[in-house]
Amino acid sequence: MIWRDYGKNYRKKIKDIEPLKDAVLIEGLPGIGHVGRIAAEHLIHEFNGEKILEIYCDDFPPQVLVNNDGTVDFMNNEVYIIKEPVSMVVVLGNTQALSPAGQYQLSQKIVEIGIKYGAKITYTLGGFGIGQIKEEMPKVYVASTSKELADKISELGAEFRQDGGSIIGAAGLMLTFSKLNGIEGVCLMGETPGYLVDPKSARRVLEILSKFIGFEISMKELEDRAKEMEKFLEKIKKFEEEAMQQQQRAPTNEEDLRYIG
Amino acid sequence: MIWRDYGKNYRKKIKDIEPLKDAVLIEGLPGIGHVGRIAAEHLIHEFNGEKILEIYCDDFPPQVLVNNDGTVDFMNNEVYIIKEPVSMVVVLGNTQALSPAGQYQLSQKIVEIGIKYGAKITYTLGGFGIGQIKEEMPKVYVASTSKELADKISELGAEFRQDGGSIIGAAGLMLTFSKLNGIEGVCLMGETPGYLVDPKSARRVLEILSKFIGFEISMKELEDRAKEMEKFLEKIKKFEEEAMQQQQRAPTNEEDLRYIG
Amino acid sequence: MIWRDYGKNYRKKIKDIEPLKDAVLIEGLPGIGHVGRIAAEHLIHEFNGEKILEIYCDDFPPQVLVNNDGTVDFMNNEVYIIKEPVSMVVVLGNTQALSPAGQYQLSQKIVEIGIKYGAKITYTLGGFGIGQIKEEMPKVYVASTSKELADKISELGAEFRQDGGSIIGAAGLMLTFSKLNGIEGVCLMGETPGYLVDPKSARRVLEILSKFIGFEISMKELEDRAKEMEKFLEKIKKFEEEAMQQQQRAPTNEEDLRYIG
Amino acid sequence: MIWRDYGKNYRKKIKDIEPLKDAVLIEGLPGIGHVGRIAAEHLIHEFNGEKILEIYCDDFPPQVLVNNDGTVDFMNNEVYIIKEPVSMVVVLGNTQALSPAGQYQLSQKIVEIGIKYGAKITYTLGGFGIGQIKEEMPKVYVASTSKELADKISELGAEFRQDGGSIIGAAGLMLTFSKLNGIEGVCLMGETPGYLVDPKSARRVLEILSKFIGFEISMKELEDRAKEMEKFLEKIKKFEEEAMQQQQRAPTNEEDLRYIG
Repeated sequence: MIWRDYGKNYRKKIKDIEPLKDAVLIEGLPGIGHVGRIAAEHLIHEFNGEKILEIYCDDFPPQVLVNNDGTVDFMNNEVYIIKEPVSMVVVLGNTQALSPAGQYQLSQKIVEIGIKYGAKITYTLGGFGIGQIKEEMPKVYVASTSKELADKISELGAEFRQDGGSIIGAAGLMLTFSKLNGIEGVCLMGETPGYLVDPKSARRVLEILSKFIGFEISMKELEDRAKEMEKFLEKIKKFEEEAMQQQQRAPTNEEDLRYIG
Repeated sequence: MIWRDYGKNYRKKIKDIEPLKDAVLIEGLPGIGHVGRIAAEHLIHEFNGEKILEIYCDDFPPQVLVNNDGTVDFMNNEVYIIKEPVSMVVVLGNTQALSPAGQYQLSQKIVEIGIKYGAKITYTLGGFGIGQIKEEMPKVYVASTSKELADKISELGAEFRQDGGSIIGAAGLMLTFSKLNGIEGVCLMGETPGYLVDPKSARRVLEILSKFIGFEISMKELEDRAKEMEKFLEKIKKFEEEAMQQQQRAPTNEEDLRYIG
Repeated sequence: MIWRDYGKNYRKKIKDIEPLKDAVLIEGLPGIGHVGRIAAEHLIHEFNGEKILEIYCDDFPPQVLVNNDGTVDFMNNEVYIIKEPVSMVVVLGNTQALSPAGQYQLSQKIVEIGIKYGAKITYTLGGFGIGQIKEEMPKVYVASTSKELADKISELGAEFRQDGGSIIGAAGLMLTFSKLNGIEGVCLMGETPGYLVDPKSARRVLEILSKFIGFEISMKELEDRAKEMEKFLEKIKKFEEEAMQQQQRAPTNEEDLRYIG
Repeated sequence: MIWRDYGKNYRKKIKDIEPLKDAVLIEGLPGIGHVGRIAAEHLIHEFNGEKILEIYCDDFPPQVLVNNDGTVDFMNNEVYIIKEPVSMVVVLGNTQALSPAGQYQLSQKIVEIGIKYGAKITYTLGGFGIGQIKEEMPKVYVASTSKELADKISELGAEFRQDGGSIIGAAGLMLTFSKLNGIEGVCLMGETPGYLVDPKSARRVLEILSKFIGFEISMKELEDRAKEMEKFLEKIKKFEEEAMQQQQRAPTNEEDLRYIG
């Protein structure tokens, strides 16, 4: 069944499930270095995540992606659940909303879905772009709706950002809507050059996350998986750049359709 | 009777009809080379299509087109039905929605209308811009929500795109909403330079389409019709360019009205 | 009483009146040369128009205008009625909606208001920019939803445009919504350089309009009135240019407020 | 409890209170020179303002601000009440809405909230940018929905603007919605260079305001407080510039997330 709410979102239920007990909500949508996405996909693969929901939104890029085998991929976000070693609701996707209003509405919706399926805390995973490749191990930064949580996570090696910056998009707004819905939120950001798919940074983020939540996870296949993903992610990046250019040209329908109609 | 839904669309019913049996939904809205539009108009002319509905949308260009005889044309999309040789619901128009949200909402609405009138599958027709004129016969590419359908159509001569690109606008999103509404969708894209009205490409698309669906169609008048259309389509292109420029200048009301107010 | 509908418009009723009998709806919102506005204001002054409604819209420029005497003017559209010599519902204002959706929604709303107060036909008045000053009398162009009306008005000296262009904004969309609501619409456009307030063009438009509807109107004070208006209209133009620039800089709140906050 | 209305705003009630008696509504949202904000914060500190409500909006920048201690600040507006020496409803915040529609909807909402808590008049406080540093005392300008109020305040030393300009954003639109809701509104604007945080201008605005309303307020700590604020406000300015640039680049999700994802 599909339905639409707020005049903006559509959901397609893939599987009916009972709410989990004391779950954590984890966000790994596309972003800089695709750090969050790599980390979240690794969780799903290692712990046999099961897709329960697809989310469509009027504010996603108005397109479908064409695969080499003649099929298409829709622009959407997907919700997976993981039952062991820890209950998790994991959100992945090939896009984020394009406009501020879309970002707000979708972040709110995702947090509500997480809570509905049992989440008691939110972790958003992302990259922190430093514009260059570093020799050393990438740092992980933490920012939270709770000073107590931030302090605890910093004891595990995460640092506090001192750049006076912001967290833009779902990784930031899901913290806002977690708090507004009565649960705390934590954002973990791995240092990354920003122009490369970065499994090393994703690994560091997962190390802090797993230590803090308290589960073990093998990193053996993360790099291989990231390499497989790389081609796909480069493809997405290409779409996003095209979309960006089309938006910059202030798309009219003719423009939107110049390449394919 | 006019009504509005989703706060965005208006419909004007032209004729009441009973749903068709096992119809196909065909989209030929404006796009590159106007391939889809030429093909869809040819279907309507050859098979005596009957207009049943006009669709208006807040997200179309805020204007009317002025004809040389003192009349005006409204910006809209039109729904035709064809009963023989095969039941078809055909969507034409002189514009697509301007914004992502408008594209999503209108594509969804059109698919719902198609299904309401009996469509069991969706075909979106368009061009694939290659930026230059080719001597050989233009290729036709296929992309589908169903691997099985894509494979079958490729047996008739359509190819799979290997460019890792996307299908933007109604031709893409109607695939998304077909799938979300429980039917499959196919996009046929004819190679076209992109800066010319291209009846040759439209003909190739129609050849594949008619072979696959299983009907015969005379192509005798397609080129003549395309020539007649050319003037009209150039005119539309001109409007679209103007509209694009006006959008790029970040229209204020004064700007929007600089030419005519 | 203020109320809001479609999530976009607000109305403030100034006076309760009974619907008029066989009225005409006349639009003179800001546009090129302010031709429509000058003409509509002249009607209201000559025939003692009475304000019955103010229309506010979320899609107007987010500002108030500051007068030299310490008061402010709100951005709005105003509806006046005229009872003699002919029943008229006249729409004026200091702005039009900024976005396509706002243009559609407001044009629809204004036509509905006109019909509610008794309008059986719509006349939109505007300028047709020619980019230069002409020695001869400015031409008046007509475009209509009805070929019959266009022909009749052309017999009075109005011409048909041969430029293959469009009518952008309320002057165009009110034709669309007149037709969709079951009445005909006519747009009269007076030639105008485009960068000057143009009472000569407005006068020509009024001449055709009054001849066609069948009323007499003194033009004696039109030029004086236009001169008085000129300062005010220049002021509005200045605001619109500022607003346009602010939009072009992709306004954030800081930007929106750089001048005054 | 959080709730959303108009599809745009969210409120979080911090404290339940009875409506005040004969209160004044005071707006000090971010703007040029942060004049209004400094003035409003000073009121809250001097008179022990109590926060009763937080307002969130889909049209705020889609981000959270990161503090040096690992916590985050949400983008929001806050409503405070002051009971002595005069009943006040004071609105502060770290942002204004990004789009025209957001500005309208939020200004309307804030005025409604003010009236609900007892406000009988609205004062919006802001800066008037003059682009340079002046030796003399900064002037204060007044503009009002009421000629009578403007005249009275001018007797206290405020002047009328003669620049034929506008008041953009909440400081302007709250005047519109005050009038539409049956109360008067006054905007006080302190001259300010525009590129500096300007406590001197804020002080002058407060002097006029307090004289007119009739309360005494110590200015002793205003400058110190402004200095403390300066760092924070510079930080906000930085975010806003980033956000502006991101908007100018016509943000796609990839773009929105280039720095942090």
